[in-house]
Amino acid sequence: MSSADAKMLSQEPLPDDEARWVKLTRITYRDPRGTARTWESAERRTRPRDADIDGVGIVAILDKPGGKEIVLQKQYRPPVDRVTIEVPAGLIDAGETPEQAAVRELREETGYVGVPTETSPVMFNDPGFCNTNLRMVHVAIDMSLPENQHPEPELEDNEFIDVFTVPLVDLWDECRRLEAQGYAIDARVGTFAEGILMAQRLKL
Amino acid sequence: MSSADAKMLSQEPLPDDEARWVKLTRITYRDPRGTARTWESAERRTRPRDADIDGVGIVAILDKPGGKEIVLQKQYRPPVDRVTIEVPAGLIDAGETPEQAAVRELREETGYVGVPTETSPVMFNDPGFCNTNLRMVHVAIDMSLPENQHPEPELEDNEFIDVFTVPLVDLWDECRRLEAQGYAIDARVGTFAEGILMAQRLKL
Repeated sequence: MSSADAKMLSQEPLPDDEARWVKLTRITYRDPRGTARTWESAERRTRPRDADIDGVGIVAILDKPGGKEIVLQKQYRPPVDRVTIEVPAGLIDAGETPEQAAVRELREETGYVGVPTETSPVMFNDPGFCNTNLRMVHVAIDMSLPENQHPEPELEDNEFIDVFTVPLVDLWDECRRLEAQGYAIDARVGTFAEGILMAQRLKL
Repeated sequence: MSSADAKMLSQEPLPDDEARWVKLTRITYRDPRGTARTWESAERRTRPRDADIDGVGIVAILDKPGGKEIVLQKQYRPPVDRVTIEVPAGLIDAGETPEQAAVRELREETGYVGVPTETSPVMFNDPGFCNTNLRMVHVAIDMSLPENQHPEPELEDNEFIDVFTVPLVDLWDECRRLEAQGYAIDARVGTFAEGILMAQRLKL
């Protein structure tokens, strides 16, 4: 059994009154000149009322003898009908802080136990198209802890996630290799790799 | 007149048969165990038939005496009802290469004339929610060219974009400052800054 065995069978238009997770919205707004205009937007229906974000992305860093590595995962994603390369991530539960959600999701999806070290500003995934957003939470994983020697994910019945790690110094080249193998690169992984590449090349 | 003068006036559910730019899709797929499941997804209606991407994001780098700077823009985005901090970006026209789209959009939105130096893998903006994607194109801007001394954007009637530049070494801190001032950070800008920060801290 592998993520690569998953496959789209069919797709059809989804009427608004049958959608449980997503919705379309028509926004009327005043532009900077004062003219009223409309815009079409997509949203999740799941954001908790008390939350300013849909979820968290997790930059989980392992301190290995050969250098720092980032935890990534392979997962079939129906919207793109491909196996994607993503950072661990998840929707936030009502009442949770971003750091609590990150530690919980990391443990559930990968088995690793870690400590939050940094939380990003709110980042919007595609703000011309939708309002979905997240905070990135950096989590340090202490490899000397027994529970991190043989991490055991606690996946739900409908979750199929393969966890792997990549040396940070090599992340951009690895994204290229994974794309050549047919994987779809999530923007968080790709753009993070791009920032590392830029800093390396320009010696920032 | 400023992007900050724009404002959402109202929003309402958008029925599928009235949407021109976006749509919802119900996907039926086979999971890795062979079980048929459904997923709800959002899409753009505008991707050209011959294109594998919706658009491009542009990492435009100015070589200034004090160091490299990245071109960013402030723009009111109705889906998030905020002024966002984004890289220049745009949808791809039918028949265009990513590099052609990047050079064209950069000139239109910022006035800068540049040369593509690197093109990223396809990156998916939020693959658990939608299929929208882009390639990031890096563009070098030669500041000795006359047209780059006083760049003149060619904006459409409904486009309001403020262009500014930020030293790459300072991008993460600048994202924090901009968020504190009320701007919404696009994930490409934030995650790119995060990669630079990580490389600086770990001396990658």
